Amino acid sequence: MSDSREVVRGLLRPQFREATPYGAPQLDVAVALNTNENPFELPLEVAEAVAGALREQVPHLNRYPDREFTGLRKALAAYLQAQTGLSLPIESLWAANGSNEVLQHIMMAFGGPGRSALGFVPSYSMHELISVATGTQWIAGRRDEHFDLTAADARAQVQEHDPDIVFLCTPNNPSGTALGVDVIEAVLAASRGIVVVDEAYVEFVRPGTPSALALLGGQPRLIVSRTMSKAFAFAGARLGYLAADPAVIDGLRIVRLPYHLSSLTQAAARAALEHSDALLANVEELKSQRDRIVEGIASLGLTPVPSDANFVLFGGLSDAPATWQALLEHGVLVRDVGIPGHLRVTAGTEAETTAFLNALAAVQR
Amino acid sequence: MSDSREVVRGLLRPQFREATPYGAPQLDVAVALNTNENPFELPLEVAEAVAGALREQVPHLNRYPDREFTGLRKALAAYLQAQTGLSLPIESLWAANGSNEVLQHIMMAFGGPGRSALGFVPSYSMHELISVATGTQWIAGRRDEHFDLTAADARAQVQEHDPDIVFLCTPNNPSGTALGVDVIEAVLAASRGIVVVDEAYVEFVRPGTPSALALLGGQPRLIVSRTMSKAFAFAGARLGYLAADPAVIDGLRIVRLPYHLSSLTQAAARAALEHSDALLANVEELKSQRDRIVEGIASLGLTPVPSDANFVLFGGLSDAPATWQALLEHGVLVRDVGIPGHLRVTAGTEAETTAFLNALAAVQR
Repeated sequence: MSDSREVVRGLLRPQFREATPYGAPQLDVAVALNTNENPFELPLEVAEAVAGALREQVPHLNRYPDREFTGLRKALAAYLQAQTGLSLPIESLWAANGSNEVLQHIMMAFGGPGRSALGFVPSYSMHELISVATGTQWIAGRRDEHFDLTAADARAQVQEHDPDIVFLCTPNNPSGTALGVDVIEAVLAASRGIVVVDEAYVEFVRPGTPSALALLGGQPRLIVSRTMSKAFAFAGARLGYLAADPAVIDGLRIVRLPYHLSSLTQAAARAALEHSDALLANVEELKSQRDRIVEGIASLGLTPVPSDANFVLFGGLSDAPATWQALLEHGVLVRDVGIPGHLRVTAGTEAETTAFLNALAAVQR
Repeated sequence: MSDSREVVRGLLRPQFREATPYGAPQLDVAVALNTNENPFELPLEVAEAVAGALREQVPHLNRYPDREFTGLRKALAAYLQAQTGLSLPIESLWAANGSNEVLQHIMMAFGGPGRSALGFVPSYSMHELISVATGTQWIAGRRDEHFDLTAADARAQVQEHDPDIVFLCTPNNPSGTALGVDVIEAVLAASRGIVVVDEAYVEFVRPGTPSALALLGGQPRLIVSRTMSKAFAFAGARLGYLAADPAVIDGLRIVRLPYHLSSLTQAAARAALEHSDALLANVEELKSQRDRIVEGIASLGLTPVPSDANFVLFGGLSDAPATWQALLEHGVLVRDVGIPGHLRVTAGTEAETTAFLNALAAVQR
């Protein structure tokens, strides 16, 4: 290690000295099914609308963006009303550069030193990383052997740990299953602090699974976060959002960096939301590819976890890292999420899904 | 206060319960000289290039951006080499959504609970706000009665407080004056931690003021931050950057949120950097408007602070809030930065600058 490295390492916060950056390997492969992206490019009409909205902004980039992103919040409210029938005031909506930044705002405002956050693992690993980075004590709660979480179990863990913040991820990443509303209600009843329901994959749920948005009325401690990165096929634009009581939004406004959403991000997201039907048109196709993956994996004698998302976690592997590597050698990149004997695969196009299933069959042979 | 407000207020971190969000009022006025924006829209050729680069990205927004923004870092290195002659490896460059996020990355990696940051106030208020939001103890150092800071004074204050991080803002916002290199060298020599030199306005310095970039070699504790929001006329795109030892960059990579820079931001900034000459073409004009403001203010019997930036702080007002309001009634919006008897005004176009000087003359009559 060079002198410079040694000096800088000594100045880093102690908890980061052995840390490595978050992130899946960025490899150039034919079939990338590792980050739960939507495999479909933007439809031409939507791409034209987004490019046109961006072009309009460009000459005026000398000016700061609307710090309150009022137009974007109106567009998000209109989208949620169309999708769920709920009429939320724009004062209930917030957005940031990806749902990660949305979650960071929550943790900076309501977490921090001397406070704790409980999540039920395995779950989205950024919940822990953002908690730690904001100085919040992380408490790793449990799921059962099928990665499920019952209302009684969730309630008992909340009562045991008395956390300031609870993360519920539904559908859960990386396991894929959605939580019942009874679990969310039990956690709200048992806890005294903020309850974050991370619905990044909610557009992919199987029929009959309601959103936590329906619980928002009269629940000022409830925050429902979402993203345009998955179903919306908009990962590259980085737009996460949340709905909560307006008092929560006022708290987030204190910790957000001024002008955190660029004029380009605001314009692109607004244009995309105006075409949400077209953007979401592939959701049903992705759900059917997901179901194909579940069936195909099961037919190979492996154990897929039931999924409400655009990915499938599967177990039964004798050596998951070896399978990951073997799939890569077949040109298929999946995700090793660190659960022994398990890998996670994103639902791709029909051709990508077929390539994965063929590669897995070859590897398991 | 409603029940919801009371509940949420009780859950906020204690230091935020009385806080109000940062930010200048967003008022719709004819002459906005309050946020140090560049008043010139993007030249047509640059706007075309940026819009074209954005259009290319749009169809592929279903994919996550390049997490390492390699192309953008190359463009930043090429720009700095063209501007300063320094050849920095791309491993020395970092960028984020505005220099505020750059500074937040620094404070998350190297500040935090149990650590302290020293700034010499009045200075850019986000230095304090980001320190507090990351749990870093803020130490308000002093400037002299002319808002200047000598090497000896800076050294003495660093020795007195022994901070983990020192902020130097040059040219200083809101006072406008640049620091001598001797001040930066003295702080580096006297301190044991990170020294952040915030050069957001460096392109506007008067001749003979070198950048801290020249000190980077062999100084792993030095970080030089910059922005495309001011001279580059790119505030709406939100692109801040910094140069530092590669080991520092590796530390920032641990705390940055994955995919923090969208594909759109990366593409827009790259295209703009390829046209940096055209974008920076108005810098000399803005400097001459700044100098006009200094002279005009002095001729009214007020006391402008000498400026190396695109704004001027001036004192001698008997009631600064009243003058701020009176200027607003003349259609001119300036900034009350909270220094008694002082206001800050941004250099505008020739017409905007004239409007300000005329309004000020009318108000002072």
